[in-house]
Amino acid sequence: MTDFAQVAAQLEGQAIELPSWAFGNSGTRFKVFGSPGTARTVEEKIADAATVHRFTGLAPSVALHIPWDLVDDYVALRRYAEDQGVRLGTINSNTFQDDDYKLGALTHTDAKIRQKAIDHHFECIDVMDATGSRDLKIWLAEGSNYPGQADLRGRQDRLHESLSTIYDRLGEDQRLVLEYKFFEPAFYHTDVPDWGTSYVQVAALGDRAVVCLDTGHHAPGTNIEFIVMQLLRLGKLGSFDFNSRFYADDDLIVGAADPFQLFRILFEVIRGGGYGPANPDGHSDVAFMLDQCHNIEAKIPGQIRSVLNVQEMTARALLVDRDALTAAQEAGDVLAANELFMDAFSTDVRADLAAWREERGLPANPMRAYAESGHQQQIEADRIGGTQAGWN
Amino acid sequence: MTDFAQVAAQLEGQAIELPSWAFGNSGTRFKVFGSPGTARTVEEKIADAATVHRFTGLAPSVALHIPWDLVDDYVALRRYAEDQGVRLGTINSNTFQDDDYKLGALTHTDAKIRQKAIDHHFECIDVMDATGSRDLKIWLAEGSNYPGQADLRGRQDRLHESLSTIYDRLGEDQRLVLEYKFFEPAFYHTDVPDWGTSYVQVAALGDRAVVCLDTGHHAPGTNIEFIVMQLLRLGKLGSFDFNSRFYADDDLIVGAADPFQLFRILFEVIRGGGYGPANPDGHSDVAFMLDQCHNIEAKIPGQIRSVLNVQEMTARALLVDRDALTAAQEAGDVLAANELFMDAFSTDVRADLAAWREERGLPANPMRAYAESGHQQQIEADRIGGTQAGWN
Amino acid sequence: MTDFAQVAAQLEGQAIELPSWAFGNSGTRFKVFGSPGTARTVEEKIADAATVHRFTGLAPSVALHIPWDLVDDYVALRRYAEDQGVRLGTINSNTFQDDDYKLGALTHTDAKIRQKAIDHHFECIDVMDATGSRDLKIWLAEGSNYPGQADLRGRQDRLHESLSTIYDRLGEDQRLVLEYKFFEPAFYHTDVPDWGTSYVQVAALGDRAVVCLDTGHHAPGTNIEFIVMQLLRLGKLGSFDFNSRFYADDDLIVGAADPFQLFRILFEVIRGGGYGPANPDGHSDVAFMLDQCHNIEAKIPGQIRSVLNVQEMTARALLVDRDALTAAQEAGDVLAANELFMDAFSTDVRADLAAWREERGLPANPMRAYAESGHQQQIEADRIGGTQAGWN
Amino acid sequence: MTDFAQVAAQLEGQAIELPSWAFGNSGTRFKVFGSPGTARTVEEKIADAATVHRFTGLAPSVALHIPWDLVDDYVALRRYAEDQGVRLGTINSNTFQDDDYKLGALTHTDAKIRQKAIDHHFECIDVMDATGSRDLKIWLAEGSNYPGQADLRGRQDRLHESLSTIYDRLGEDQRLVLEYKFFEPAFYHTDVPDWGTSYVQVAALGDRAVVCLDTGHHAPGTNIEFIVMQLLRLGKLGSFDFNSRFYADDDLIVGAADPFQLFRILFEVIRGGGYGPANPDGHSDVAFMLDQCHNIEAKIPGQIRSVLNVQEMTARALLVDRDALTAAQEAGDVLAANELFMDAFSTDVRADLAAWREERGLPANPMRAYAESGHQQQIEADRIGGTQAGWN
Repeated sequence: MTDFAQVAAQLEGQAIELPSWAFGNSGTRFKVFGSPGTARTVEEKIADAATVHRFTGLAPSVALHIPWDLVDDYVALRRYAEDQGVRLGTINSNTFQDDDYKLGALTHTDAKIRQKAIDHHFECIDVMDATGSRDLKIWLAEGSNYPGQADLRGRQDRLHESLSTIYDRLGEDQRLVLEYKFFEPAFYHTDVPDWGTSYVQVAALGDRAVVCLDTGHHAPGTNIEFIVMQLLRLGKLGSFDFNSRFYADDDLIVGAADPFQLFRILFEVIRGGGYGPANPDGHSDVAFMLDQCHNIEAKIPGQIRSVLNVQEMTARALLVDRDALTAAQEAGDVLAANELFMDAFSTDVRADLAAWREERGLPANPMRAYAESGHQQQIEADRIGGTQAGWN
Repeated sequence: MTDFAQVAAQLEGQAIELPSWAFGNSGTRFKVFGSPGTARTVEEKIADAATVHRFTGLAPSVALHIPWDLVDDYVALRRYAEDQGVRLGTINSNTFQDDDYKLGALTHTDAKIRQKAIDHHFECIDVMDATGSRDLKIWLAEGSNYPGQADLRGRQDRLHESLSTIYDRLGEDQRLVLEYKFFEPAFYHTDVPDWGTSYVQVAALGDRAVVCLDTGHHAPGTNIEFIVMQLLRLGKLGSFDFNSRFYADDDLIVGAADPFQLFRILFEVIRGGGYGPANPDGHSDVAFMLDQCHNIEAKIPGQIRSVLNVQEMTARALLVDRDALTAAQEAGDVLAANELFMDAFSTDVRADLAAWREERGLPANPMRAYAESGHQQQIEADRIGGTQAGWN
Repeated sequence: MTDFAQVAAQLEGQAIELPSWAFGNSGTRFKVFGSPGTARTVEEKIADAATVHRFTGLAPSVALHIPWDLVDDYVALRRYAEDQGVRLGTINSNTFQDDDYKLGALTHTDAKIRQKAIDHHFECIDVMDATGSRDLKIWLAEGSNYPGQADLRGRQDRLHESLSTIYDRLGEDQRLVLEYKFFEPAFYHTDVPDWGTSYVQVAALGDRAVVCLDTGHHAPGTNIEFIVMQLLRLGKLGSFDFNSRFYADDDLIVGAADPFQLFRILFEVIRGGGYGPANPDGHSDVAFMLDQCHNIEAKIPGQIRSVLNVQEMTARALLVDRDALTAAQEAGDVLAANELFMDAFSTDVRADLAAWREERGLPANPMRAYAESGHQQQIEADRIGGTQAGWN
Repeated sequence: MTDFAQVAAQLEGQAIELPSWAFGNSGTRFKVFGSPGTARTVEEKIADAATVHRFTGLAPSVALHIPWDLVDDYVALRRYAEDQGVRLGTINSNTFQDDDYKLGALTHTDAKIRQKAIDHHFECIDVMDATGSRDLKIWLAEGSNYPGQADLRGRQDRLHESLSTIYDRLGEDQRLVLEYKFFEPAFYHTDVPDWGTSYVQVAALGDRAVVCLDTGHHAPGTNIEFIVMQLLRLGKLGSFDFNSRFYADDDLIVGAADPFQLFRILFEVIRGGGYGPANPDGHSDVAFMLDQCHNIEAKIPGQIRSVLNVQEMTARALLVDRDALTAAQEAGDVLAANELFMDAFSTDVRADLAAWREERGLPANPMRAYAESGHQQQIEADRIGGTQAGWN
């Protein structure tokens, strides 16, 4: 099997973007529980993201969600983030919380509401210009709850029209990233329910429109690594929203529900050229992001755990002896090929990663280091009063 | 096939309990949309339920949820309801919205928190005494999000202990109804995830503990009518929470997603003696309730549509020629048996039901009658100011 | 609502292709039960299909499966079919039953095996030339059972190459129809698991390559009518394999498991221009086929029931008042739009269809007419000896 | 964390029963592929099982399936097995391959067919008496394909009656083990579809009737370890049929699809007292069996891989520091509890297990040892002619 030393270099520069909203409160439709020390402002959310980066070296950027992270001066916010040691990353639009969007936004039958939703995206592009962000991510939380309620086809056509208008406004170095989701918040049909729909919509736009794959947004049993492979093959995998799930879009910590699935996904990313260091120019265009909810667990260590999980599975996936694997595959030796694959997955890379971190001036055990740092106690003491951040 | 005239009498006395919360706002974790005319108080919710009954004759009682429907004087509330023409029905407890219950309530490791949750149920029993309610319904929104987070077995044992304490407090004519749910709000394990667990828990309590079957609380593909059959066979089907779903616990209008499934469920209810008028003493112990969310549609007509759907499918299910069906089944004639079953399902009973209603002084078409009544416009005009009711 | 009389004309010319294999025995991996009267030869299968057509007027063609329906002289077989009153339709290839294909066929790593599979398709095209068939249907029963066993990406690329070679051999009026399937017989990955993959593969071939949608080949919860809409929108819906399911690819009689879903699918077909009579040139290019197993029920009446179910739901779907529906959708009246949709679904069209059939010289009730015809008894008496047809 | 040395002793005596049918050919409904060296007789199947045991020390017994393993003299067969170094274990009945059982066996409406099925079980008990087997395992492959086809309730009652008759025939030291299955080969309803039904059926029989949990027989998303916990809590977990799946009852090598799930299941087995060495009397009553299909991979190494996977996950599950875990759980520290749990899962125990094996005179790497032994080549050369064993 490949040795850790052989892959250590490829772990350099791994970058996982954190979502600002992971540092605010979240919950289910039944209850959002608060927790001491939760960020109250965009700045505190960015500071929390920077803390995760300080302890792990894995999270150099933070994604914003508009309007949850609305501020007057994004140039100042960008400077603030840089002072904290992180960049501002993807800008996420939101057309699902305004009363006008009850029955649709970019797909609405009413042209005025569509224009309002398009204008919101124009604002997001303005923010991107100020923050230097590359990606405009659109999760289309649109659909219908009852058969007959909506004209599926008409909505699809209007979606194309709205996206085209937005796409045309993007700068040369900016991308439109379209996320698909099987269901929720709509319960009969979703306008972009699967990778196929996202693909045909972005393919109709142009080169700078790509797909976002949220690992929690699939039907039960879906082979997600197959989709990763296919989108990379088509040159259309733009980004990941990592999280994990047992049932629906549970938004649990990535790798918590099925670590082997995460391993398989990362293997396909690497195999398909979607993992940065493996590429000729030193980086891939596939953005690794988290999109999770820490409903009951502490948020900063929740994010630390998450990026560590991605790093650990990336290391394991890099350990696959691909030459030997190819040989076994071509020989039709099913058990040998599977064993080679599992060898890498079964390898405990934690000690190697701890050493790797120490060499780079990072704590060997970021979870423990954070726990012992007193930082959590500090923010719990400091962040009294105000309104804890959430999804509004 | 059986004729409508033969079954008309069996439709008499069908009673579907409405949930007070259907008249408040609801939504997803992403957004709760408000709508004009939404009830602001318990009394307005009861008035809305009474409106549904007035137009349909099908909804003589309304379930309350504590503390969403907390009032000082339940005797007065009972009188108010009766003045409106409805009864107060099932009392639903709530141990999922207090900060103490973040990690459990009746199953919590901390005895003080368990006692607090038990005390809440004692209060609910006090309410039942005042309202004359028979059923205490417990939906146990407890579980864990991460493997290892909780001791599954210890929680099960503590659940038994807590339920026993509550059960012992019930009056002779009161029942404990335990609802199961596949997942949500917990995303790794649910303490009462399936009918089997609900059954073993209530069987360990005694005769007056029964199971609540919420039609939306199952794994994909689950044959729900089989469970109906089994629980009736075991004498443990206490009540239904009717709604419908395409994906998870979508809480859509009952019959909207899969009318044939609703038909099959009702057929098994009737076949197993769970449908009222068919029983020797003139009523069954199985309570028919709705538990739905009208996230985007109007609430009062949403409830009218729902009870009409149940009535319509009940009528169709009654139309099955059971003697002929039994003969075909025993002859092993698969296609004939299926055809006899489908004959009833394919029958359009709407005109017959319209006539049936008119004979009883009800509007032939309750949906149209409500729309034309001006009632919706009236409440939209009247209910200005205040805070619209919701899940808190 | 639209009246039956208004849609009766659109029912003219509805044509549902029958699969020859529905008249042979089928079963599960556990057991294939035989049944008296089962066809033993291709000719008997065609005769059975012709019987279905004679009783229903709905099934003018029969699909063949090579090599299950291998004969020496397809021109003679074509003449035989025409003498029976039916046409030979789609040719289905089979690259899943030869020992060489254990680990793949068109995707195999071994070029010799790929060529063998390609050659088989060339033979199928020769058959098509003789039978006058338009469609070459490829169900790609390929994939892998274990992670690591196969290189997902390499297989996808080889698939493209193999399909291109086959596509190039097609005549001007012939089409390649690529079927997707979620899983089975492979249990880890399927090479064409979803409509998206089928779409990108056929789009890379050319205009005469289209997608086959088998209604049983989706993940749990998938909104199939959405896919119908999308493929029609993209001009790539080639054909249906109709059947129904509760769990996996159960291959039950179409409409048996969820008649409302069948209604919704047919509504989208009509709305999207995929239903014949509605098109300017009098026919659509979307082929309606059955792909079912009659494991336990009688085969000829099983097929009669199936085509009747499709006809009945087509009639109901045609009854939707689309102008009123559009108005309600544009007004954002969720309940009214849903009610208009359900009005059509709730309508019992059986008496109208019986009259419609009688006007055309067909039996009013084909199921009863077949039962009373004595035909089943006749073939049970005649078809003694020989080997009943099956999947080999 | 707990050290391997501390748990090594608990790995002693782990016993996993092999199914004789794993050494015959199996496949899907589409194709059963043969493979060189496949056993042709019961004796060769037993010899293959003994080979697995010789290389692993983990598989001291082999389950038989009647009539697939029908012989004239079971006493002689028992002696043969003992000579090979293994015991004969569970006897599996089969009431799904006789034409009489097309529509049911123990649940059939026809008393004569029920009696025939009961008689078959009596024969199985006779076999058990001769082989010294403790367990009669009943997988009830019964159900219906179409709504209306069967009376669900009547079948359940007849099932109880049939099982009672069989149960009464059992000897004092024999057990009836009832397996449940979500679906297949029936596609609308299964007579024992879930653990709840199996539980209520065996609870109605008596103490020596228990439940068999096949890991592949659940609805998508089902939390299987919860069921393990509940059945152990109720004293009714009789045995496991281990295998793994991505979709339906795929019957893949245990641990191949989701190793973390296998870990969680084994953790609950240990925690609930279902794992042998941990019990006061030195063994638990829970039987560990495999029930798998090696459709495409070699059979003997497929079984070796399987028992190694179970052993490896057992070792990891034993490594969980349960005291620390309990402390974290009671402190409500979600992330710490999850980390403690994952620590054990992330540990690579392969080197320790290799050493453990060598200490016991077993090959350090059984897969490699088998590959290098030449045994496979030997049986491929020897087993020429005859009919390879399969499911009939």
